[in-house]
Amino acid sequence: MPDAYSSLILPDVRQMVREDDRHGLTEFCKVLHPVVVVDILEELDPRDVWVVLDNTDLRLRVEIFEYIALPRQIEMVAQLDKRRLSELLEEMSPDDRVDLLSRMPHDRVEDLLPLIAQAERNDIRRLLSYDEDSAGAIMTTEYASLPANITVNDALQQLRQQAPDSETIYYIYILNTARRLEGLISLRELILAKTESVLSDIMERDVIRMRVNEDREDVAQELARYNFIAMPIVDDDDRLVGIVTHDDAIDVVQEEATEDAYRQGAVEPLRDDYEDTPLLTILWKRGVWLLVLSVVALMTAAVAGHYEQTTADGGSRAGDAPSGLTPALIFLFIPLVMASGGNAGSQSATLFIRMFALQPADAAVPGTGFHVNRQLILREFYVAASLGTLLATMDFLFVWLWFDKGIDRSLVVGLTVFLIVVLGTTAGTMLPILFRRLGMDPAIMSNPLIAAIVDVMGVVIFYEVAIWLL
Amino acid sequence: MPDAYSSLILPDVRQMVREDDRHGLTEFCKVLHPVVVVDILEELDPRDVWVVLDNTDLRLRVEIFEYIALPRQIEMVAQLDKRRLSELLEEMSPDDRVDLLSRMPHDRVEDLLPLIAQAERNDIRRLLSYDEDSAGAIMTTEYASLPANITVNDALQQLRQQAPDSETIYYIYILNTARRLEGLISLRELILAKTESVLSDIMERDVIRMRVNEDREDVAQELARYNFIAMPIVDDDDRLVGIVTHDDAIDVVQEEATEDAYRQGAVEPLRDDYEDTPLLTILWKRGVWLLVLSVVALMTAAVAGHYEQTTADGGSRAGDAPSGLTPALIFLFIPLVMASGGNAGSQSATLFIRMFALQPADAAVPGTGFHVNRQLILREFYVAASLGTLLATMDFLFVWLWFDKGIDRSLVVGLTVFLIVVLGTTAGTMLPILFRRLGMDPAIMSNPLIAAIVDVMGVVIFYEVAIWLL
Repeated sequence: MPDAYSSLILPDVRQMVREDDRHGLTEFCKVLHPVVVVDILEELDPRDVWVVLDNTDLRLRVEIFEYIALPRQIEMVAQLDKRRLSELLEEMSPDDRVDLLSRMPHDRVEDLLPLIAQAERNDIRRLLSYDEDSAGAIMTTEYASLPANITVNDALQQLRQQAPDSETIYYIYILNTARRLEGLISLRELILAKTESVLSDIMERDVIRMRVNEDREDVAQELARYNFIAMPIVDDDDRLVGIVTHDDAIDVVQEEATEDAYRQGAVEPLRDDYEDTPLLTILWKRGVWLLVLSVVALMTAAVAGHYEQTTADGGSRAGDAPSGLTPALIFLFIPLVMASGGNAGSQSATLFIRMFALQPADAAVPGTGFHVNRQLILREFYVAASLGTLLATMDFLFVWLWFDKGIDRSLVVGLTVFLIVVLGTTAGTMLPILFRRLGMDPAIMSNPLIAAIVDVMGVVIFYEVAIWLL
Repeated sequence: MPDAYSSLILPDVRQMVREDDRHGLTEFCKVLHPVVVVDILEELDPRDVWVVLDNTDLRLRVEIFEYIALPRQIEMVAQLDKRRLSELLEEMSPDDRVDLLSRMPHDRVEDLLPLIAQAERNDIRRLLSYDEDSAGAIMTTEYASLPANITVNDALQQLRQQAPDSETIYYIYILNTARRLEGLISLRELILAKTESVLSDIMERDVIRMRVNEDREDVAQELARYNFIAMPIVDDDDRLVGIVTHDDAIDVVQEEATEDAYRQGAVEPLRDDYEDTPLLTILWKRGVWLLVLSVVALMTAAVAGHYEQTTADGGSRAGDAPSGLTPALIFLFIPLVMASGGNAGSQSATLFIRMFALQPADAAVPGTGFHVNRQLILREFYVAASLGTLLATMDFLFVWLWFDKGIDRSLVVGLTVFLIVVLGTTAGTMLPILFRRLGMDPAIMSNPLIAAIVDVMGVVIFYEVAIWLL
């Protein structure tokens, strides 16, 4: 729904930018939900995004900016001078602000901090100090809190003052003078209570809380288990230092699921979406696992070679002959060849299936708006060729120098590995795309199934290359 | 934190049940958070759970009951007579109620419905009619709604009346007389607004909404993208029919991630947690994929066999000889053997890694409370033995009848497949457990890595069995 909507409005926005229609741009930002505004702004270049956002007041500008994905935020702040950037940062919510700062060049941050008000600066330094996988790194410090000894009526008054600066006012934390967490009252209970009641009489005292250094994944899961809107986070002295809200928890659950999916497919987790990750990073995150897996596969070949030598008679051990297409060659290295293709294919399938899972499905209905970014497929071929070259070179050297199989047969193995990695990657990329296009679940293309399909191709390629070269 | 807590309180609760300490049990249910109460009740048998819950009023009893996992809920309602069960169902929230009813025997449901009030009954029938993957299946029909033409003051009055029966009152939906969704106002905006303002002047008009038949996964993702507490769900005439709340959305995200992880590891998705799934269901959900994958692996062997016949000279084609350990046998079927072990191992690793991911991590700190249910590991061996027998039989028959390799060599393949499936499953189960026990991420045990490790073992077993039998 929002996607079709966005593409309808985009031409108008472009025209307003061209014609510098300030009033129109102000209205555009104000009337639509920030998420929809961001969808549309994604199509503009960063400079034009600022042209649009400059027509809003700071508050709305920041609200919209906070919905922009982090890699793009980084691109965008590169366009701002120090003064405008510090103004933006001051207004941002503490958790989003720290996410951005932790990804900016260190000296730029140090350059900026003096321009930011003392209180905010301290908040930034403290939040930056927490481990990036901890509750501290995802919590916000803008929560609603009240003392226990006031009436409901006074509480509502004070809450109205706190509201503009609190991420949520639906849970109100009751603190003592040392800021220790003593109770919790929801806004729902507050408006249902008699106006003259005192908070200490109606608050919940057995408040579930978590520590600032606990794993963010555990915090998200506990929040989910308790059906909370926010989980209070305390320090070692039980003082409230922040809250983790439901929207951040659901993001953590998504991110951790993505990480686990990548790990399961032997891809080191990426910091950003696959689409937003630079080529070199991808090569590293995939290559490191492919190398490890190839070393294990070479061990398999070594074990098989050992058995072959100790059990087979001379006649079938044709592998010692200087050349020729021998079962020994095929049989020793076919597991290596197959594994390389299967592993590279599993990686691609994992990455594409997860990317699809994070996209709204209506785009996948056959014949409608669905398309996979062509550049993404093209990039996959660069990745395949680079990883294929890497593995082929390693395997060639191993077969030649370690297994001592002669240069021509080492070339057969190397070339086969290159081809099967490219083909495996193609299968791992195109099969999920095909399944999605047919309206089926691309996730059916499991790692073992991709590996099994690539195995068949591996045998064919190995034989064809061997027949051709030997 | 709650786990250590639970085990401290459990003995007291058992004693109170034994001594029929009604006052103590009432206090226990009232003082602790329902999630903590449920943690403790999990250790009791269903009959004793009702002994505990009978000491609370219906409202709290239902609140606690709703936090119990579905398979256990089903066990528990089997203990209730029709009258008590209908009382419970009437009080339950519409979405949880329908989840439970959809898993109960059909005639029991039809038996119960006449005892339930007309309005609730209609609600149940409507919700039961939605596709189980749709927004309709996870939405609740208890939301707060108001007309547009009243003042903030009147709105707050009416809201207080609606509060007890609404799942959330933090988003208030503004409906016209035909129940069409015209606007949205949050409770935060409402208490900040001037008491004499009219809702139509302050409400947000561009309300994001989704259709009742949209995929529940898309609803969860859109809710996450917009940072909503609830997503309004409308029918084809744009009438509000329900809302999906943040806590249900985070559950959907978790469940869909589990489904995708299972698919990635070639396990058909399960309805309940792995721990709660009966043995036969597991055998089916894993076996069906192992069979498909083995058929593809047999195709690989057929392709390799074809090349072997057309390219090799008579000397190295020892596969035609009636017996003996020949490279042809090893080389044709080694990919099949390896794949079977790798696939079964990947399945086990997938299931255990996901199970760990859904458990709080503090239980995993070495030396503290962490333990994997022994029965679960034992069950894994039953699964391994059954699946191993299945695959071994199929492969034996194929090698004997289709590939015509003689009964002794078919036995070698069959026996090897059995052993490697058992060993692969053991590796796939124990390696993630070991990694977790060492305080490392069990997810490092990716499908390709398990497959690679099982490959090495596969070669050894194949040779040893062949040497022994031939």
